[in-house]
Amino acid sequence: MNTMKKLITELQKLKINTFGKDFLLTWEKTDDEIRALTLVTECLCELHKARKSFRVFDTGLAISIFRDNSTRTRFSFASAANALGLGVSDLDEEKSQIAHGETVRETANMIAFMAEVIGIRDDMYLGEGNTYMREVATAVQEGFDQGVLHQRPCVVNLQCDIDHPTQSMADLMQLKSHFGSLEKLRGKKIAMTWAYSPSYGKPLSVPQGVIGLMTRFGMDVTLAYPEGYGLIPDVIETARKQSRKSGGKFEVVSSMEEAFAGADVVYPKSWAPYNVMLKRTPLLKKGDRDGLKHLEKECLANNAKYKHWECDEKKMKLTKGGEALYMHCLPADISGVSCAQGEVSKGVFEKYRLATYREAGFKPFVIAAMILMARLKDPVARLRKMG
Amino acid sequence: MNTMKKLITELQKLKINTFGKDFLLTWEKTDDEIRALTLVTECLCELHKARKSFRVFDTGLAISIFRDNSTRTRFSFASAANALGLGVSDLDEEKSQIAHGETVRETANMIAFMAEVIGIRDDMYLGEGNTYMREVATAVQEGFDQGVLHQRPCVVNLQCDIDHPTQSMADLMQLKSHFGSLEKLRGKKIAMTWAYSPSYGKPLSVPQGVIGLMTRFGMDVTLAYPEGYGLIPDVIETARKQSRKSGGKFEVVSSMEEAFAGADVVYPKSWAPYNVMLKRTPLLKKGDRDGLKHLEKECLANNAKYKHWECDEKKMKLTKGGEALYMHCLPADISGVSCAQGEVSKGVFEKYRLATYREAGFKPFVIAAMILMARLKDPVARLRKMG
Amino acid sequence: MNTMKKLITELQKLKINTFGKDFLLTWEKTDDEIRALTLVTECLCELHKARKSFRVFDTGLAISIFRDNSTRTRFSFASAANALGLGVSDLDEEKSQIAHGETVRETANMIAFMAEVIGIRDDMYLGEGNTYMREVATAVQEGFDQGVLHQRPCVVNLQCDIDHPTQSMADLMQLKSHFGSLEKLRGKKIAMTWAYSPSYGKPLSVPQGVIGLMTRFGMDVTLAYPEGYGLIPDVIETARKQSRKSGGKFEVVSSMEEAFAGADVVYPKSWAPYNVMLKRTPLLKKGDRDGLKHLEKECLANNAKYKHWECDEKKMKLTKGGEALYMHCLPADISGVSCAQGEVSKGVFEKYRLATYREAGFKPFVIAAMILMARLKDPVARLRKMG
Repeated sequence: MNTMKKLITELQKLKINTFGKDFLLTWEKTDDEIRALTLVTECLCELHKARKSFRVFDTGLAISIFRDNSTRTRFSFASAANALGLGVSDLDEEKSQIAHGETVRETANMIAFMAEVIGIRDDMYLGEGNTYMREVATAVQEGFDQGVLHQRPCVVNLQCDIDHPTQSMADLMQLKSHFGSLEKLRGKKIAMTWAYSPSYGKPLSVPQGVIGLMTRFGMDVTLAYPEGYGLIPDVIETARKQSRKSGGKFEVVSSMEEAFAGADVVYPKSWAPYNVMLKRTPLLKKGDRDGLKHLEKECLANNAKYKHWECDEKKMKLTKGGEALYMHCLPADISGVSCAQGEVSKGVFEKYRLATYREAGFKPFVIAAMILMARLKDPVARLRKMG
Repeated sequence: MNTMKKLITELQKLKINTFGKDFLLTWEKTDDEIRALTLVTECLCELHKARKSFRVFDTGLAISIFRDNSTRTRFSFASAANALGLGVSDLDEEKSQIAHGETVRETANMIAFMAEVIGIRDDMYLGEGNTYMREVATAVQEGFDQGVLHQRPCVVNLQCDIDHPTQSMADLMQLKSHFGSLEKLRGKKIAMTWAYSPSYGKPLSVPQGVIGLMTRFGMDVTLAYPEGYGLIPDVIETARKQSRKSGGKFEVVSSMEEAFAGADVVYPKSWAPYNVMLKRTPLLKKGDRDGLKHLEKECLANNAKYKHWECDEKKMKLTKGGEALYMHCLPADISGVSCAQGEVSKGVFEKYRLATYREAGFKPFVIAAMILMARLKDPVARLRKMG
Repeated sequence: MNTMKKLITELQKLKINTFGKDFLLTWEKTDDEIRALTLVTECLCELHKARKSFRVFDTGLAISIFRDNSTRTRFSFASAANALGLGVSDLDEEKSQIAHGETVRETANMIAFMAEVIGIRDDMYLGEGNTYMREVATAVQEGFDQGVLHQRPCVVNLQCDIDHPTQSMADLMQLKSHFGSLEKLRGKKIAMTWAYSPSYGKPLSVPQGVIGLMTRFGMDVTLAYPEGYGLIPDVIETARKQSRKSGGKFEVVSSMEEAFAGADVVYPKSWAPYNVMLKRTPLLKKGDRDGLKHLEKECLANNAKYKHWECDEKKMKLTKGGEALYMHCLPADISGVSCAQGEVSKGVFEKYRLATYREAGFKPFVIAAMILMARLKDPVARLRKMG
């Protein structure tokens, strides 16, 4: 496998310090580490295509905690864990005694005695998901330091209120594969834009994840949304800084058309307004149904003003040569297919449908690579043996 | 293991073309392939009895989709997958985002990135279960052809509206084991007959599966049911054709006694009338509770006319030497045990109870054999190494 | 690994007859077998600390049946099964066809075709949990004897109405580790005492398990509870006999302070009164909500009389040097943390919090050791190879 050799040669040039570390936000990782993650992901893809096993554990558990419904992330995590040799054990909070008054730090240790990884999805409450992940990480660190746990499982963010790193890394893999290399992303324009959806309350983590990652590679990142649909200010600031450092561009505009103009890549995707998410959290916590209904009504009425934020053939014509790469984390709200009117027209989606499947297809390998890099002292040496 | 050697010698004489193929209906497989399936199943049983592993995968997922409650099929599938080295991952449609507007072809790919097999049970709606399986199969085929999937998982029918191949193959194993060989089935009379049950709406797939498979071995297959309880006409036609070709007999009668007369094997089992199932589908889809209640009432009233369709000691006396083999897919409605009056008397069931357990016991091995034959290019060579 | 060698040398001196046997009550096992179980558990801990695999199965299922919510036992069982190489398959009674009239003996066989172990938690109904486990055990024994099953899975009690052996064995491991050896437990005073909780209906199995096990090691076991909170008389009798035989002491007192006086170990834990549990069973079975509410009210009113049965700093001062080891099976009702007033004060719990986590940490290894000793003919030989 010559490809493997090439990838490993590249990997050896990078300085990585990921052993024993969690993966919570892409912007907490160095450029070398992100780069290495793309290379390890590619190694695992190569092995899988050749039907070679990349199992590195004989036994061990991969714990998943999903605080929201999920198909693709659930299966991506299960796929990654299984491929590495881990058994998946889901902490179903309804079946557990958590409601009986257990604390996070207690539960985290109780489930982790034989765990190598804890994958968490918690994207409902603004200000809480990532915090919860850090509480779990702190708890297992204490458990490990104090002799409760024989090994320290790594925590992997499977989507939180701030970032969705397994998604944005899969997106990066898609871009790397499409353009040929990370270097070739330099100067390419990506339009991360809000799009209309008949539902409300979709998390901000996807657009935040995309601008928080793509600004590191010298890309021309344009974020577009209608008034009131801003993202977490800190993340915007991070994107801005990274963009400056990488020699790229970062712009915020208020028109889908403007964002699409000359774009190499478009990522039209609905999300809830930051302010609505802020209002929603206390209502959800109180279980205030009337309040939630009222907020939903208000929000949907507001959404409806922006039905023209749809990625259709006409807007695609504005992109570079009319042939920008369309991206989506799936499932998309497709006009006339999954809803009357949505994020993308049927024609545009169908043209790029298989491309979006391939984009999603990187996710299991990204997750496996994250675990591998967090749990093996010398992942590169291990890959060399497998190749 | 001499038995293994014998089985493999037999296997080598057969022409099989099952690699990369789904298992959706037994009558889509050639006689040689069905024969081979019984031999591979026996090989796996032999290995398991000797406590030898027949694991062939290092890692990989077995996806299950159950659209109806299930114990034995669920555990049979999990057992088979585990024995082959696969991790089981259940697509729980309630926990997934399917309700959020995903299409079958999208979901099928999203769950299949590392899947070797997708097992589906969908037996509720007449005209839909098998169709759904084919949609999933088409989707993963497209995904594989278009580079979305690195491997093409096989789809295994774990019960649909038309056939229940893992059950009917387990039934065939039971018959082969009881009579000594497939050849010895020639001329044996099997009575596949309707029986009374206090419930309604049981799927047609078991009787259809039995007549669709046993007519291929020169058996004298007699189907019996009260007026109005007919099966899907196409399946009846298939059974008739196969029977003619195999030199057996296929008869439809309207009396349990007539079917039992001189029978070597009896399979008394309740099912819903075809016409009722046809009416039920649109009601279920609309969620028309009143309509469903009304239909149930009507149907149970009709059922009640046939309470004498019970497999009791008196009717068993009509069978060959009064000692026909009793078969059931379980759970049976046992009079005085699981209901006031049902499909079979307590005495008859108890006499054959362990036999029905053994019949069920073939199912995990049948499923494992199906997967093995669909996923390995040369399953016989692999078995030779294990033996 | 010198520790392993020492443990194995000790193990070889013991006479054990655990192959093919279930683990249902600790007092059904000989002293040698309990001793061996602690040694095997320690071997597995050593191996795990050294990150050496103790996988002994290539494939096979570990079936779990939980009739009550559970986090730690569920994960402990999954961890143990996974570490031994088994896949976990949960019998979710809601998703299964059990409600459709299956009998225990039928279901037990249907799920067990490839099972090595069946772990059961059934602690709700007094007089039923342990009985149910024996029914399952009898069913798989019959299945094995009659050729339905190729192997006879062992049944492991994951908590019943009588005993909680995986917990009490983890507790014993904690004591052995704390005091240095089983021999050093001789003469040590352990106070197993009732404590106040704002909830009601907690099972009796933990205190029963503790007095049923610790009386075998010459310990001074003091059981304390307010009037009306007695345990199953048979278990008390067993504890008394064992205590006499082992040269220890067994006393029942009616004051937490008296029990704590001079104690080396305290185990303050709420449980429901035996008589209430007796009344509760028929109400639960009938689904008599009003009756249950009434009983709960009555019982909580009674509980409230004993709010001073809290393990606080003042009472801890009464123990040996004020420094008794605090134990709990978790989750504890901690005053001011998980409830207004509960079993233990915040300060006491926090002091021993990590100790209770370590106590819980023995459970996966205890369960793995139980399975290993029940399923391997010569577990000691196998451990020697691993060491």
